[in-house]
Order: sequence, then structure tokens, then C-alpha cells
Amino acid sequence: MPRYRLDLEWDGRPFVGWQYQDNGLSVQQVVEDAFARFSSETITAHAAGRTDAGVHALGMVASFETIKPRDPLQIRNALNALMRPHPVAVLAVTPVADDFHARFSCLGRAYRYRILNRRPPPTLDAGRVWWIAPPLDLAAMQAAATRLVGKHDFTAFRSAHCQSASPVKTLAQLDVQAHGEEIWLEVAARSFLHNQVRILAGTLRDVGAGRLTADDISQALETGDRRKAGPTAPPDGLYFLRADYPPAC
Amino acid sequence: MPRYRLDLEWDGRPFVGWQYQDNGLSVQQVVEDAFARFSSETITAHAAGRTDAGVHALGMVASFETIKPRDPLQIRNALNALMRPHPVAVLAVTPVADDFHARFSCLGRAYRYRILNRRPPPTLDAGRVWWIAPPLDLAAMQAAATRLVGKHDFTAFRSAHCQSASPVKTLAQLDVQAHGEEIWLEVAARSFLHNQVRILAGTLRDVGAGRLTADDISQALETGDRRKAGPTAPPDGLYFLRADYPPAC
Repeated sequence: MPRYRLDLEWDGRPFVGWQYQDNGLSVQQVVEDAFARFSSETITAHAAGRTDAGVHALGMVASFETIKPRDPLQIRNALNALMRPHPVAVLAVTPVADDFHARFSCLGRAYRYRILNRRPPPTLDAGRVWWIAPPLDLAAMQAAATRLVGKHDFTAFRSAHCQSASPVKTLAQLDVQAHGEEIWLEVAARSFLHNQVRILAGTLRDVGAGRLTADDISQALETGDRRKAGPTAPPDGLYFLRADYPPAC
Repeated sequence: MPRYRLDLEWDGRPFVGWQYQDNGLSVQQVVEDAFARFSSETITAHAAGRTDAGVHALGMVASFETIKPRDPLQIRNALNALMRPHPVAVLAVTPVADDFHARFSCLGRAYRYRILNRRPPPTLDAGRVWWIAPPLDLAAMQAAATRLVGKHDFTAFRSAHCQSASPVKTLAQLDVQAHGEEIWLEVAARSFLHNQVRILAGTLRDVGAGRLTADDISQALETGDRRKAGPTAPPDGLYFLRADYPPAC
């Protein structure tokens, strides 16, 4: 059966996340409903990451199978027309091999977390950044971030609802960069625990505010005590950036 | 009497523009109401530009007089607290000389116009860009823009409701730049006619789409025929960027 890859962008505010939920509209439902209206065919779309309610995507990847092959540009344009006015866009549609699966074939995922660090509140970017009014110590955040990179037991950095079999993950990248009035965290790993990026963001915010030190981070990693890490940052500042696949895919 | 300069940022979507109107909420009203609640004093705030409904501001300047002097930081923080949840922020408050007037002292104004030029619709930037799906010819837009720079009679580039005494204006800058998937128009002049930047944007879009040529632009300038210029672009993509004042101010 023909298979397609979707590259997706969305504003997370109106959604419960990617995946179907009883309590609200999911991006998955918007995509699948639009496809059904276009083709009279029911598909199931799988995404590289589930994402929480309110989390945005600039480059999510999803895949699905269909009964009959279709022109990729036609799929893209039809989905974009039929998903309106929901803030979801299909950036690209690509035919892929039979064994491609957006979730299971994925070799790496990357997120950005945006902190607006200024006294005045956000206006145009409300709902799209985490607003932290007191000045944060960027150098301290950068130093603490190096403690988190690499292979660790991230028990202290996952939600109580996390269903991952193992808390051991390898953080390939955790860069802390000034970006105008914002601080951006650029995070990459093969996979993440539930809420891991948001807890990393909340912890680094606490470091920047002087409430935690780099040594506290090491202790949180060693003890696995969730209370030693920082709070779970709000979804507003989180963007799913990119999913990586083997070249053959 | 003490005078203050406000540097303001806002999301234009919920507003009828800067100035008081009968038909909706203005930014001026939000600012003045917040000041009244903070100080029990009624002020009148004057801005460098009026801006239309839906137009955004990243660096608007306004000024007002008060009866008694106050701490600028206190004014800033109080206004930001009291204007919520309206998407307006005071970035800075500065004491200024008696003769400073945000509108009459202003020596130059700068705007940005953002065009999102891609087939998929905007999601996170909906309401903040003008979405043009067919590819635009950037080089043609850049060439046409040079015809508009300098001192001209801009009769063909103003709204029928424009109240300016003279249609002659000097466009100091009109740069057309690629910016990822967007095309940004950066426009500066001492002052502008009503809707001038939006008509410039609509005209350059028509050039990019091959519907108008650089020669058509010259003809529009020479004849003063509004119908020879392009449409008035939507307010969504327009940002008031900056107001310039003499160094003494």
C-alpha cells in the first residue's frame, strides 16, 4: 500500500496535542478528518512525537498508508484547504517506502524552548513564549546545561505519568542561546521522556534565577528525585522542530 | 508639567488602531485607562502614528503630560500590570523635555510589512503576515521599489479618506528582502499618507506576481491614478517599527 510522509506545522494553543483525546480536539483528528473529506478514505496518521496540549510544531513528521496512490501536491493542497480554519499546515507530502513509520523509524527529535526574558509582558508572542520577568543568568544556565548533556538516568526529569520503560536517555544537545530579548533552549535526543524538555526548561530557569546551581542538577540526576529538579515549564514556549530519519527513508 | 515618553509594543488584532474610535477598543484608550486607574489622573497620550485597525507595533512612541512627576519604572510596571490582558506592553518610560511631542517632534517613521510567500497557509503567524501562495518574483519587486524611493507625488498611493494637505512625500527607504519563507518590506519616511505603506505593499505584490511592471509604477506616480497602483494590502502584515527624534529630545 502507498505510504506518505507529512511535514507539519501548527499552533498548539487550540489543541490537546497531536494524539486523539476525549477532552478536546487533536491535530491528528484534524489531519485525519481532512483526509477523509478529500478521499472518502479513513487513514491513521502516526507522528514522530505526541506533544502535549498547547505545544507548537514547526517541523513535525507524520506518516500514513492509503489504499490508492495519489499526487503528493494534490494531497498537500487538499489537506491545507480542508483543515482550515484550524491553525495546522502541511508543509510537504512525500511518498515513502513501505517500512517508513514516522514514530518507529525516527532516529532523533529536536525541540526549541523559547523564554521571553524581559520585564514587560509579551504581546504579539503571548501563548508562544514563556514569560520570565526577572533577568536570568545566561552563563549559569549554559554551565548547568553541560551537566545534562550525554547519557543519564533522567528519573528526576520526567512526569509522574511517563510510560517509558527506561528513564535512561542520551541528550545529544542542550544549547542555551541568547536571541534578542529571548533565551532559546535547543534540545535534541533520539527520544525523550514525558515532559522531559519542559522540566529541563523549568530547571534551567531556576538556575538562571539563582534558585538552583549546576551541582543541584548533578544531584537531581544522581538521586532521581523529581523534587530536586525545577518545575514543568508551560507548553507555550515549546516547539517540536525536527525529526531525523535514516537517509534511505 | 512633567512629560513622559512611552515606547510601546502591541498586537493589533483586537484594536481599532491607536486612536479613539466609536466602533471599538483603541490602544490609546487602553493606555489612558490604565494610567487613570494607577494615578487617578486623566491623561491624553499622543502617538507618533495613528495606525489602522489590525496593524501591529513593535516600537511605537507616545507621549503625555502629568500633574505630578513619578518614577518612570513605576509607571512602566503599573501600566503593564493594569493593561492586562490586552496585548499591549510598555517597553520603556522616559522623562522628556517640555517641548517633546511624540507626533509633532517626530523626524521619521519606519514600518515593516511581512508577506508570507508559500503555498501552505500560516499557522503560528496567522493574523501577523499577509499570506501570498503563488511564488513572487523578488528581483522584480526590488527593481520596482527603486522607482518609489525619493520625493514623489503619491496621490496614487493614498486612501480616498486621506486628510494630508499634500500628497508629496519623500520615501527615504523601501527595501525588499527575502527572510526565510517571507518577504519583508522595510519602509521609512518622515511621514506617510493614509494607507500608503499598505498600498505600496499591495503594489509590490502585484509586481512580484507579474501583474504590474516597474514602468507601471512610474506611470502610477506620474498620473496620480489610484487605479494604476495595486490593492491596499491587509493590516495583518504591517508593523510600526520605529519613530526617530532629534538627539536633544
